Amino acid sequence: MGLPAEFHDIAKRVNNWGRWGADDEIGTLNLITDEVVRAAATTVTSGRRIPLGLPLRQDGIQTGVIPGRINPVHAMVQINQEIFGPGTVACSDDLVTLGLQSATHWDALPHASHSGRIYNGRPADSITAHHGAEFSGIDKVPHLVSRGVLLDVARAKGLDRLPGNHAVTPEDLDEAAEFGRVTVGAGDIVLVRTGQLQLSLAGDHHAYGYPSPGLSIRTPEWFHARDVAAVANDTLTFEIFPPEIENLWLPVHALHLVEMGMLQGQNFNLEELSTACAQESRHAFLLSAMPEPFVGATGTPVAPVAVL
Amino acid sequence: MGLPAEFHDIAKRVNNWGRWGADDEIGTLNLITDEVVRAAATTVTSGRRIPLGLPLRQDGIQTGVIPGRINPVHAMVQINQEIFGPGTVACSDDLVTLGLQSATHWDALPHASHSGRIYNGRPADSITAHHGAEFSGIDKVPHLVSRGVLLDVARAKGLDRLPGNHAVTPEDLDEAAEFGRVTVGAGDIVLVRTGQLQLSLAGDHHAYGYPSPGLSIRTPEWFHARDVAAVANDTLTFEIFPPEIENLWLPVHALHLVEMGMLQGQNFNLEELSTACAQESRHAFLLSAMPEPFVGATGTPVAPVAVL
Amino acid sequence: MGLPAEFHDIAKRVNNWGRWGADDEIGTLNLITDEVVRAAATTVTSGRRIPLGLPLRQDGIQTGVIPGRINPVHAMVQINQEIFGPGTVACSDDLVTLGLQSATHWDALPHASHSGRIYNGRPADSITAHHGAEFSGIDKVPHLVSRGVLLDVARAKGLDRLPGNHAVTPEDLDEAAEFGRVTVGAGDIVLVRTGQLQLSLAGDHHAYGYPSPGLSIRTPEWFHARDVAAVANDTLTFEIFPPEIENLWLPVHALHLVEMGMLQGQNFNLEELSTACAQESRHAFLLSAMPEPFVGATGTPVAPVAVL
Amino acid sequence: MGLPAEFHDIAKRVNNWGRWGADDEIGTLNLITDEVVRAAATTVTSGRRIPLGLPLRQDGIQTGVIPGRINPVHAMVQINQEIFGPGTVACSDDLVTLGLQSATHWDALPHASHSGRIYNGRPADSITAHHGAEFSGIDKVPHLVSRGVLLDVARAKGLDRLPGNHAVTPEDLDEAAEFGRVTVGAGDIVLVRTGQLQLSLAGDHHAYGYPSPGLSIRTPEWFHARDVAAVANDTLTFEIFPPEIENLWLPVHALHLVEMGMLQGQNFNLEELSTACAQESRHAFLLSAMPEPFVGATGTPVAPVAVL
Repeated sequence: MGLPAEFHDIAKRVNNWGRWGADDEIGTLNLITDEVVRAAATTVTSGRRIPLGLPLRQDGIQTGVIPGRINPVHAMVQINQEIFGPGTVACSDDLVTLGLQSATHWDALPHASHSGRIYNGRPADSITAHHGAEFSGIDKVPHLVSRGVLLDVARAKGLDRLPGNHAVTPEDLDEAAEFGRVTVGAGDIVLVRTGQLQLSLAGDHHAYGYPSPGLSIRTPEWFHARDVAAVANDTLTFEIFPPEIENLWLPVHALHLVEMGMLQGQNFNLEELSTACAQESRHAFLLSAMPEPFVGATGTPVAPVAVL
Repeated sequence: MGLPAEFHDIAKRVNNWGRWGADDEIGTLNLITDEVVRAAATTVTSGRRIPLGLPLRQDGIQTGVIPGRINPVHAMVQINQEIFGPGTVACSDDLVTLGLQSATHWDALPHASHSGRIYNGRPADSITAHHGAEFSGIDKVPHLVSRGVLLDVARAKGLDRLPGNHAVTPEDLDEAAEFGRVTVGAGDIVLVRTGQLQLSLAGDHHAYGYPSPGLSIRTPEWFHARDVAAVANDTLTFEIFPPEIENLWLPVHALHLVEMGMLQGQNFNLEELSTACAQESRHAFLLSAMPEPFVGATGTPVAPVAVL
Repeated sequence: MGLPAEFHDIAKRVNNWGRWGADDEIGTLNLITDEVVRAAATTVTSGRRIPLGLPLRQDGIQTGVIPGRINPVHAMVQINQEIFGPGTVACSDDLVTLGLQSATHWDALPHASHSGRIYNGRPADSITAHHGAEFSGIDKVPHLVSRGVLLDVARAKGLDRLPGNHAVTPEDLDEAAEFGRVTVGAGDIVLVRTGQLQLSLAGDHHAYGYPSPGLSIRTPEWFHARDVAAVANDTLTFEIFPPEIENLWLPVHALHLVEMGMLQGQNFNLEELSTACAQESRHAFLLSAMPEPFVGATGTPVAPVAVL
Repeated sequence: MGLPAEFHDIAKRVNNWGRWGADDEIGTLNLITDEVVRAAATTVTSGRRIPLGLPLRQDGIQTGVIPGRINPVHAMVQINQEIFGPGTVACSDDLVTLGLQSATHWDALPHASHSGRIYNGRPADSITAHHGAEFSGIDKVPHLVSRGVLLDVARAKGLDRLPGNHAVTPEDLDEAAEFGRVTVGAGDIVLVRTGQLQLSLAGDHHAYGYPSPGLSIRTPEWFHARDVAAVANDTLTFEIFPPEIENLWLPVHALHLVEMGMLQGQNFNLEELSTACAQESRHAFLLSAMPEPFVGATGTPVAPVAVL
């Protein structure tokens, strides 16, 4: 079996293996230079901060369709405990179990593999239950701060949200960039808004997941051409789901994570940011989206913040 | 019993209950205004980014002394799983259980209570196993970005690290500010470096925890006078431990979290930042230290990043 | 508010506080004597063993209606790991997170409280997040083996399962005992079959939970009169749900656990046992239903086995 | 590399692959027939019950040496929660995370593999993070009740406990059987007492684990010759550790679990049972040691009970 020729054709064109050396574990994050960050800081004009993370709660977006990917379960191990004796200062402490990919999260590069390989040509079986990902685990990403660019595809089309069968194309990205009067460049973190998250915010987690608009298999080349550092959007599956090409599942995951070595973000809440960017007539900002450094993990919850 | 008069005297002087209204749940974070953040962005001159979070791993800093506060335990629920059939793109997924206060973390305001009260005079028993913290849970903090200031107490004294019985005093903070040629102001997030984390980085988690230098009971007034928004340091207990005054345990927790409504950060790794600030001869920077929005939680892991 | 007079009337008649001393933590389990167990062993005639526990899986009977009570989530921490080097014997290891009351389980006595009290008059606030239940936690039950008696209420009535609004009455229990030609006696563990679990086995976990047949508020006196040691059945809520008396929720929990000090079992799979007992024309057997000794826990998963 | 010839020689002699059919998933548990259980029930003479499980607690026997195998962590998700409104009956609920092999447990057959195979010749890679063990997972064991036999090796030698370098040999087992005046037969569950657990009960979990007495590589043939159904003992590693033959790690695991298809139990507390058997001058009894049916798990906590 294996993947079809049309996948491999694109893969060849966007592949970054070896580009930053055989030992590289962070891929396109290498494109975020000090210079990029200095420039990003100059985009801060209003000082307004917009959080992009979903609340972490048991009644979250996971519906049980993906086995093992559970919503965060919160429990207490201390409540107002006077550890040092009666009448002393009391403390409360929390315990949480969560699927690292359950809410707003980054996929680490080894989250996807194909043909037995992960990013930079390493063997997929270097991921073990014992150690997690030996290579390119999320703990290998030291920091994730850069210029963020909102490509508000839904708003650019005058829509609240894209329909469930809409594959976001390179043309859509161009249209949104033009709408936002912004030019995507090297080291940028691109946020693509479909509006799909509104379904989840309205309480319908099933409708949110399926069917879902998302990135087309044609977009990785667009990001590759611009040397984008990372891409995130406001959907569960990131790419259009069900897929554009029959029986070719998750091709964008494979192109971004495996071939390009580019982090993907999912379930980013871009609603307030969309409004703010429209109000301020600007679509670039400083974005901090630091991974939690879980050692060996193939993903991480993230609480991104846009600073306008 | 209860707490001694000297505690209540200070408490009265630093109390912020009602200052931002009876409904306020975020305390001194109100001091981080858009203007403060705009100014913070201008401190970015090199574009260098320094992460301050410890790796999240089972072999972490918790030694079992604090019941229920376990190091993160990582497990896999999918490894290269070809969900959609043989030969398709494969995925890996992670599951983690962790104490929210186990590694680099923020204490949320209700993490401490005394005399049956949490910040803003709310009843301590509003914290339940069912819902966690009803008021001032970490999810109530929308964002946490501001100017960061490193007060490098150890380096200012020409020491690698402070001895275990050193209570960091207001005079020490003044000395460090002068050393760093920085003036702490309203809305700042202050990072106080003792060097104590070196013990943990060298592998001795027990020595790291006890005895430990840390903030003196006299410092909350110093932070209060300057309208500091949040304080973090590189120790397990934050304040000097064992305490300065016999049988008065965790007074700084009570003053900061309960009386002032000021977030505390612990186990911040300030080693690389210390070197970088010394190299660049500057001790102020943009700091992003976003909480993960665990609903009802009294704390959160955080992956802070200083942008220089 | 508080509970109505009709509750307190029954409570007075079934109360066992002090019956086994002020320090007692196991209530009616005191009724299982060596003699009872010797007699129970003589009921073994065929040697057939019937398990009564549900599979522990993420796709289990919990639907999310009860916050925090999650189905077991299974993950791997080692898979065929050659710990001692290549070519050595390899090991696999599992990690699980589960609500202790999520599947087939015993409620420990402190699982329920009313009017600020748990069994034997102890204060309900002796249950803490720090230690769990200080008194009568499930770890205080050393063993749970006795004669088991199946009261097959559904089969006695010629029904596959009782309708959702059927409160199992003392008369129903008498009818089932007569049908099974068995006399319930001191130290017995009584299993009451409604057939309701069939809904869950057929995949409809929501229908299983609500509405549900279950024990009537009139049955605790029946068990009390016979000195029954423990009672379990094949429903989620144990007692009829919604309740017989408006706004009187979970009265049977309060009577059994708090007043009588009698363990309750839920979600026992009695289907195969029902068939076997009918085949062998006998309704008493040796039952082992050992709690897992989670320290301080207010419940425990259990894998009961009937030995016929 | 691979395993040495002496291992393969024994393996050939004890191998049970195909003995109960190509589809068999429970191995020697097939030897526990109804007849065996009927006979086991007749051994109950005093009615005394002795629990063999260790308390499940965070401060348990795991020391962190085995990554991912964590002691049970207990937390509360409800404490006296009046779910149905003020003044109603209140409930408490628990959440636990635990390594399934962390305390008193059964190793399921696929817990060990060698040369890419598990019991009955199935491929070791049928164990996945997604599903756990596809074959012979602990949920495939429907029940585990039989005659239990205590072989009290330490007491037979007049010792409190065997020294750490003592490999329990077939001769030791014969000696203990003679001491206990018992003949091990088909379908028996054999409990081998070394006394090593005393170290753990005295608080020294490290000394308990290493060095440890345990079963010699010569014992599997002894069990095989007698058609024993399962074996458990009172050590962490089950077999002598470090091993008898240099660089041959865990050979008994491989022989029992992979070759014979025989469950192994570890960390059984046999102290009280040892005393009771000596007092009653008998070493056979009814044993119930039901696995918790975690689906796909390679092990399970167990709360065994001996009925004397």
